[in-house]
Amino acid sequence: MAQPITQYKWYFEDMVVGQVIPVGSKTVTAEEIHAFAEAFDPQPFHVDPEAAAKSIYGGVIASGWHTCSMMMRLMVDNFLKDAASMGSPGVDQIRWIKPVRAGDTITVSTTAVDTRPSGSKPDRGVVETEWRAVNQDGELVATVKGMGMFLRRPNA
Amino acid sequence: MAQPITQYKWYFEDMVVGQVIPVGSKTVTAEEIHAFAEAFDPQPFHVDPEAAAKSIYGGVIASGWHTCSMMMRLMVDNFLKDAASMGSPGVDQIRWIKPVRAGDTITVSTTAVDTRPSGSKPDRGVVETEWRAVNQDGELVATVKGMGMFLRRPNA
Repeated sequence: MAQPITQYKWYFEDMVVGQVIPVGSKTVTAEEIHAFAEAFDPQPFHVDPEAAAKSIYGGVIASGWHTCSMMMRLMVDNFLKDAASMGSPGVDQIRWIKPVRAGDTITVSTTAVDTRPSGSKPDRGVVETEWRAVNQDGELVATVKGMGMFLRRPNA
Repeated sequence: MAQPITQYKWYFEDMVVGQVIPVGSKTVTAEEIHAFAEAFDPQPFHVDPEAAAKSIYGGVIASGWHTCSMMMRLMVDNFLKDAASMGSPGVDQIRWIKPVRAGDTITVSTTAVDTRPSGSKPDRGVVETEWRAVNQDGELVATVKGMGMFLRRPNA
């Protein structure tokens, strides 16, 4: 009988505390900022250039939820799609440190800050991660501290 | 000279700790779940019904970022648009407690859990809030503990 095929590159056991995993970059357009904000966060400083110019931000900025969602997309495309990921019970901290504006490029990485096998489910473990997004000027624009559930490597 | 017109219903001073502010309901469709996930979180249990059926979720569920974004839209439409809101420095905790699936209706409320004037900027204050989303069966599906900055009431 054939051995089971290892389906994923990243299992729970492959998450090493402190290892920085780059997950790529994304340049955001004015159209994308507007479309997300119209759908989910139509505050004046996200959708109205004139009102935004008069706000404390001095111009339109991306919704913080949009920034997180763009970080998530990079996480999926360049990490989670190759991981035995089972989803997430939650996020422990988001910080929107600098505005993200049209034309900005965010470069994102994830680092495991803690790993622990599940106490109740022997097939999985929980990984605490910190995502960091840096802009084209090297400025940290957002951080997300979250949790992910990952399957343990079969026969590990 | 005319008195300045009060522009907003909700200023910093109007946020009362413990007061529950309902911000309405949203029914999510399969198309919306798919569109958000394709754009921002294309994990199999969000975009692929067959793979989702075999996952621990037993079917397609909304991205947690989509759930938060839908909560944000209700917050804007039914609270923040009438508030002297200056945006947010971050979120302190998100919990995705139950899956949100196509056809589910989430009903959202926000409660101030702490308020404090800014130490450095006398025109504003910070409000710690907890958002709660409950589904059509009365089950708590998500909570978000966050921070909002609000202008103080002029001449308050």
